[in-house]
Order: sequence, then C-alpha cells, then structure tokens
Amino acid sequence: MLSREEYRRAQERAAQMLEEAGIVLTPQERAQIEVADFGLGDLEHTGLQLVTYINTERVCAKELVLFPHQTCPEHRHPPVGDDPGKEETFRCRRGLVYLYLEGEPTPSPKARPPQGREHTYTVWHEIELHPGEQHTIPPNTLHWFQAGPEGAIVSEFSTRSRDDTDIFTDQEITRATMVRD
Amino acid sequence: MLSREEYRRAQERAAQMLEEAGIVLTPQERAQIEVADFGLGDLEHTGLQLVTYINTERVCAKELVLFPHQTCPEHRHPPVGDDPGKEETFRCRRGLVYLYLEGEPTPSPKARPPQGREHTYTVWHEIELHPGEQHTIPPNTLHWFQAGPEGAIVSEFSTRSRDDTDIFTDQEITRATMVRD
Ligand SMILES: [Zn+2]
Ligand SMILES: [Zn+2]
Repeated sequence: MLSREEYRRAQERAAQMLEEAGIVLTPQERAQIEVADFGLGDLEHTGLQLVTYINTERVCAKELVLFPHQTCPEHRHPPVGDDPGKEETFRCRRGLVYLYLEGEPTPSPKARPPQGREHTYTVWHEIELHPGEQHTIPPNTLHWFQAGPEGAIVSEFSTRSRDDTDIFTDQEITRATMVRD
Repeated sequence: MLSREEYRRAQERAAQMLEEAGIVLTPQERAQIEVADFGLGDLEHTGLQLVTYINTERVCAKELVLFPHQTCPEHRHPPVGDDPGKEETFRCRRGLVYLYLEGEPTPSPKARPPQGREHTYTVWHEIELHPGEQHTIPPNTLHWFQAGPEGAIVSEFSTRSRDDTDIFTDQEITRATMVRD
C-alpha cells in the first residue's frame, strides 16, 4: 500500500528521469505513469515505474524506470491458453541494470535482494546491462532485476503483457498497487 | 543501387541523429545501421535508415531514422502462413512524421511523394506524428510515411519483420539494397 502522496512523488521522479534521458512523453502518458510497489509497501527497495506505450494482443512496448538499487522482484510469465507466455527483451537506455535469470549461478553476484525478502530470490545467473545492451528472456523463465547506484531506464519489447497471470516467487506479492487516501 | 561511399555517409548521418537524440547504440549496432534505398538509387528522396534491436519469431523492435523529407514508400505486410501479417506501432521520438494509411483521404495532405513516383502512392489518410505521438497499423494495410523538414526518428514496435514478403505498390522497388564498389 502506498499513500497518494508517495505515488505522486514516484511518478514525478520517474517523469524527470525520462525527461533527462530525452524520452518524450505526451502530457497524458506523463500523468499516467504506473507505480508498482508489488503490494509490499516498500517502494524504495521493491518497486518499478512503468510507461506502457502499447499492449495489443500481439505486441507490447514499455519504458521501465528504476530508482537507485530498486528491485523488480522475481517472477515468470507462464503460458496462458494458446499463448506460450510472454517473451521479453530488456534494453538498457540509461544507468545500469543487474538482471538475474535461471541458469548457472554467478559467483559473487553484484545485486542484493531487498532485506527481509532474500528467501524469495532463487535464480542467480547474472547479466549486467549498460546503455545500449540488451537481453531476451524466454517465456516461463524466472527472472528479476535491480538498478545500479544511479537508477536505470530500460525499454521492454515483448509479446502481450498479462500482468495478472505473472507468477511471483514471493507469495506476499500482489501485482496491483493499492493507494490509500 | 548505392555506392559504398553513399551507404557509409548515410550510416554516419543516421548515427549522428540517433546520438543527438540521446539514443545509445553499441559500436556494433552503429557499424551495422541498415540503409535502404528500395532499389531506386535515390536515397535522399526514397529511403530509410534502420537499427533493428530484436526480431524474434514473435516480436520486433527497431529505430527508424529519416532524413529531411525522406520517404518510406507505400507497402503492406501480408499474411504469411499462420501469421496474419506484421502489426506495426510507430512512435515518433524526434522531428515530425507524416503517416499515410488506407481510409478517408485527407484534403490538402502535407507530404508530397517523391517526384516521378507519384503514381505509386495511393493511400492518403494523413496522420501527423510529433515526438511522443504514435499510431498502430493493422496487418495487411497499405501505408507510407515521410519525414518533415528536420528529419525524424521513429521507434517501431511490431510482430516479426519478414521484409522479403512486404508488398510495395511501386513495382520497381526491391527491398534489398545493393551496393556497388
Ligand atoms: Zn518479466
Ligand atoms: Zn510497414
């Protein structure tokens, strides 16, 4: 749960980071930046800010904004009906992102999961993305990511997003952010 | 047909426009910017420069760079096997783009087709895209676009690109650019 004021402040901060990166939004897109706290109410550590440009039956494109050291928690995108599951390409535009996937665990990984939630991070194959670098995540593959010390802007190119069917490792997570007045 | 030197100069010019827009490429992407003259050998008027970030079976993302008044000629993306045809979203990042689609013709359209090829432009429903504005083109729909006086950078979010099956209205067009040494 976030207060209306926390939500608004996070929107404003994300808008400013996008502007500094030269990414132009319409006034409406700017007003509708999505702030996700994944229900943990600890946005500084577990959270994500999103601008969704398009999400049709076939294609989705977003900008993801992460504050310094902010973490998008571990999840996967399972098959839904005929859809084999969401395929995501993350392209780093600004800052630095540590991406973790299923695969050979990386010794001495550089990111640390949010305190108190360590038990909900289980995949440790590390990929470091600097501006201009990208990685594609196959459907139904566990992944999580964390921004470096200056935050990050990441473009996501994917098949359709169905946030409500994403499966998070952390059972306390709910994808929909609730705002209290 | 383009000379090796024309090709290289167009790559360099596109790279500079992307850099000025704050879009970071890896050195390899920069070296591989695609220059398309659509076989007409008149790149200033009919042409397009492209960076393809990703093109999987399901998703494709590109940056399109257009020089001032440069035109991407009229075409459509037909169904291929199980694929209903490419669905494209164009998002303007810099400059100005005039996009033309099937539909009610716009009186006094702002763009003019390249001289001598006017007969190969048949759809005149105009959509003007400024930075932050975007439009989605359904599969198998005729479209073409032209940059304004300062050129343009356009992000394309789409299903898989199969350039070799695109259908151009201009029968003299070939999608593959040939370079002469
Ligand atoms: Zn994901
Ligand atoms: Zn097209």
